[in-house]
Amino acid sequence: MPHSATRAPLYIAMHERDNVAIVANDGGLPAGTVFASGLTLREHVPQGHKVALADLPAGSAVRRYDVAIGYALQDILAGSWVHERLLQMPAARGLDHLPIATAQPAPQPPLNGYTFEGYRNPDGSVGTRNILAITQTVQCVAGVTNFAVQRIKAELLPKYPHVDDVAALEHTYGCGVAIDAPDAIIPIRTLRNISLNPNFGGEVMVVSLGCEKLQPERLLPPGSIALIDERSAAATDSAAGLDVVCLQDAAHMGFMSMVDAIVRQAEAHLQRLNTRRRETVPASELVVGVQCGGSDAFSGVTANPAVGFCTDLLVRAGASVMFSEVTEVRDGIDQLTARAATPEVAEAMVREMAWYDAYLHKGQVDRSANTTPGNKKGGLSNIVEKAMGSIVKSGSAPITGVLAPGEKLARKGLTYAATPASDFICGTLQLAAGMNLHVFTTGRGTPYGLAAVPVIKVATRSDLARRWHDLMDVDAGTIATGQQTIEQVGWELFHRMLDVASGKKTWAEHWKLHNALVLFNPAPVT
Amino acid sequence: MPHSATRAPLYIAMHERDNVAIVANDGGLPAGTVFASGLTLREHVPQGHKVALADLPAGSAVRRYDVAIGYALQDILAGSWVHERLLQMPAARGLDHLPIATAQPAPQPPLNGYTFEGYRNPDGSVGTRNILAITQTVQCVAGVTNFAVQRIKAELLPKYPHVDDVAALEHTYGCGVAIDAPDAIIPIRTLRNISLNPNFGGEVMVVSLGCEKLQPERLLPPGSIALIDERSAAATDSAAGLDVVCLQDAAHMGFMSMVDAIVRQAEAHLQRLNTRRRETVPASELVVGVQCGGSDAFSGVTANPAVGFCTDLLVRAGASVMFSEVTEVRDGIDQLTARAATPEVAEAMVREMAWYDAYLHKGQVDRSANTTPGNKKGGLSNIVEKAMGSIVKSGSAPITGVLAPGEKLARKGLTYAATPASDFICGTLQLAAGMNLHVFTTGRGTPYGLAAVPVIKVATRSDLARRWHDLMDVDAGTIATGQQTIEQVGWELFHRMLDVASGKKTWAEHWKLHNALVLFNPAPVT
Repeated sequence: MPHSATRAPLYIAMHERDNVAIVANDGGLPAGTVFASGLTLREHVPQGHKVALADLPAGSAVRRYDVAIGYALQDILAGSWVHERLLQMPAARGLDHLPIATAQPAPQPPLNGYTFEGYRNPDGSVGTRNILAITQTVQCVAGVTNFAVQRIKAELLPKYPHVDDVAALEHTYGCGVAIDAPDAIIPIRTLRNISLNPNFGGEVMVVSLGCEKLQPERLLPPGSIALIDERSAAATDSAAGLDVVCLQDAAHMGFMSMVDAIVRQAEAHLQRLNTRRRETVPASELVVGVQCGGSDAFSGVTANPAVGFCTDLLVRAGASVMFSEVTEVRDGIDQLTARAATPEVAEAMVREMAWYDAYLHKGQVDRSANTTPGNKKGGLSNIVEKAMGSIVKSGSAPITGVLAPGEKLARKGLTYAATPASDFICGTLQLAAGMNLHVFTTGRGTPYGLAAVPVIKVATRSDLARRWHDLMDVDAGTIATGQQTIEQVGWELFHRMLDVASGKKTWAEHWKLHNALVLFNPAPVT
Repeated sequence: MPHSATRAPLYIAMHERDNVAIVANDGGLPAGTVFASGLTLREHVPQGHKVALADLPAGSAVRRYDVAIGYALQDILAGSWVHERLLQMPAARGLDHLPIATAQPAPQPPLNGYTFEGYRNPDGSVGTRNILAITQTVQCVAGVTNFAVQRIKAELLPKYPHVDDVAALEHTYGCGVAIDAPDAIIPIRTLRNISLNPNFGGEVMVVSLGCEKLQPERLLPPGSIALIDERSAAATDSAAGLDVVCLQDAAHMGFMSMVDAIVRQAEAHLQRLNTRRRETVPASELVVGVQCGGSDAFSGVTANPAVGFCTDLLVRAGASVMFSEVTEVRDGIDQLTARAATPEVAEAMVREMAWYDAYLHKGQVDRSANTTPGNKKGGLSNIVEKAMGSIVKSGSAPITGVLAPGEKLARKGLTYAATPASDFICGTLQLAAGMNLHVFTTGRGTPYGLAAVPVIKVATRSDLARRWHDLMDVDAGTIATGQQTIEQVGWELFHRMLDVASGKKTWAEHWKLHNALVLFNPAPVT
């Protein structure tokens, strides 16, 4: 590992009261290594894994991020590797007697003058891409729709050069599900709100089978489509203003008749989308969803703190930022309720956590089901440690809003959007919330992308950024090596966001990589 | 409707004790219509909907298939339209005191001499297609895998003309899930067993991210791959005999390095698959999954009885047949336990029904969540009536086996494979069970298809078969018009099965239409 050979041994502690720190050097460090502080390693410690800074008697709290991430299961001497098998995980914090809106940070000065080039929609929202979306009520229609999309891309898209892409909103919901179950509202409103994402310009078109449970009028009831302007409504076939191609319509004679109908309807929308042009808009029009996936111990040291700094910049610029992932913030609920701007926000946060606790309990698991083998290999001992490193993405601004899964964002500032941590499900729900830009940090590495919104990927380690040079957009590993500060990488990310929002392609867009939409459906299938 | 104009008014009763029948004529029949029996319609009755054959006093049982499908909510006069709003649905049959193996039909004579041209595998199973499958441990790798598959199809497939296709086994599972929850075994074994489907010839290759919860060794533990022969094992990189491309491997430098690795591994498998040739095998090597979707009142009158007749032919020929869809057989549990070959089979059936009852109850719904608006529009008043029409697909043979969701079939004869009724989930689970041919009946019409196994689609009505002439493979509507008997269509379907199993393309294959794999995951996501 030539890079570590040239660097002095380095550990990184997150807080002055911490009694463990993580080894920063590529490849880890061998037994006998002496740090600048005088601490000597008693054994090999892999990169990103924890070393004891002091003797930790059995039963004592092991502290990182100024929080007890576990309790020592045996005496641990200073300089030892503090791995997951030496730690007992703390019990989950109860949801009673939490501090409510007690930690109101002083407001930071507004950040004025930053702009990007976006697509202004009739309803005032702003898109960062110009995409024709084809909403589908049910998986049944996916084969025919995909066939039609291939034709649209080959035959029509070249004629409409101002349209970036065509995205079929394929999903596995719509029928064969318990659509009247109380929890079915989540996938239904998710699909509805995705169709209204600002990157689709209000040009809602729907492909329906006909006999499905999720009828078009149930998916998009009258009045739900505020984005559709008059031109669009006038052009539709349906009296309700909804543009639906129904495959079971008696008028269709054979497969090509269905395909032709989809292609024909698509062209009407493409014509209007093609008239859209980017215009200069303030940075406050950004709606950013932040997320992490494939986390390691550096996530909470490099990439996530840089994202957190950038989150503060965005809030100061008047933009909207969402952080998510219930199981990855559950252990920091007291920090979050303390940061809530109002008691109502804190209560909404507690409501979402309680709902998720119950949801996991029904499946006979708890929040600890979150961590992966890769997390542990990367140095994260348990969900408490992972959560502390995850929450820092939210920066330090007051939390002014809470969204239940699938709801649409209605206010600017910092919002907690409650979602599962699964990358695709979280991304899908943030899309539904109205996200027009996505930031994704990763330590182990994942080629994640979405079809509807650009995803800026931030590597937590320079080794990953070097190897995945054409998949990672930003290298935050330079924070660990001291080459850049958190503030520098945060500003770099902020400027990159404005560039990407203005049309600069991410690596995932360059390769046309994207993952499936994955709906969160806590209700049964039938 | 020219077709109905040329035909005498016709209703179809299923059993001599029934007091309702369905109107067969296209377009339905108007008030005043007089049937051959002398019955006169008191109002318009749509096609497929029920007419009262006698006066039905309020509270009396409304009988179809010789079963009470509901109780009259008011007095209903003979000749009236008996629609869903006039019926109270019966309570679900309890799972105690069921008849156990009491209705053993006399064995039917063996059916010898029928064969098809299939691909014999090293483990003795037989494929009907020759497909390279790429197993994926987690959705994270789908973007890169799809990119590689496009290259494989463009660059390699033309060099290997005996290989039919390349199928990426994309799914939304693998991480961000509660993988240690008791119910997580279902999606895991489903994915494992799909990889071993006979149409993939034992050439298992896996694309893994690296940090996911569903590690390759957990998905396919040593010993699970009985299909892999020695040539295949010798060619793999891994000591465990598992051929895995891991995207996070330190050796990968950039995106194309990952893509190249997948393409390179795929070619080794393509070379071996390309040596496979069809050979004549007995019809007993068929493993048929039967399913219905988009059902109407004709499903239980035309297509499903014809499939049931064909099921009996297949059992007589020594083949394997699975019927499925828990909520669509739940109301006929007493018929099924009576038909069980042994008490153990009956007990297994009850176990699966009880599990599903509890699963639905947790989501605060019951079996009645199954029916769709399209079912009701098609004349099916409730799940009891739908179930009676669905069960007839199973024919009359003794039920000799039961599979829990995701399990692999181990015996020939008639098996009840417990699955949800959702078309894609049922199809995915039947794939996992080892199905090499799929039969799908539909009344409302759906363009359903699967990438891995040919799907023969059977229309319940001739009107649908005419309009969807290039999507429906068999027209069973001729049974309703008296042009063909159930037996004739059953034999036609049997011969079609042998043809399709031998390589004749279905319409879905012609258009390359297929739906997504959809895993049944009753466990939580995290």
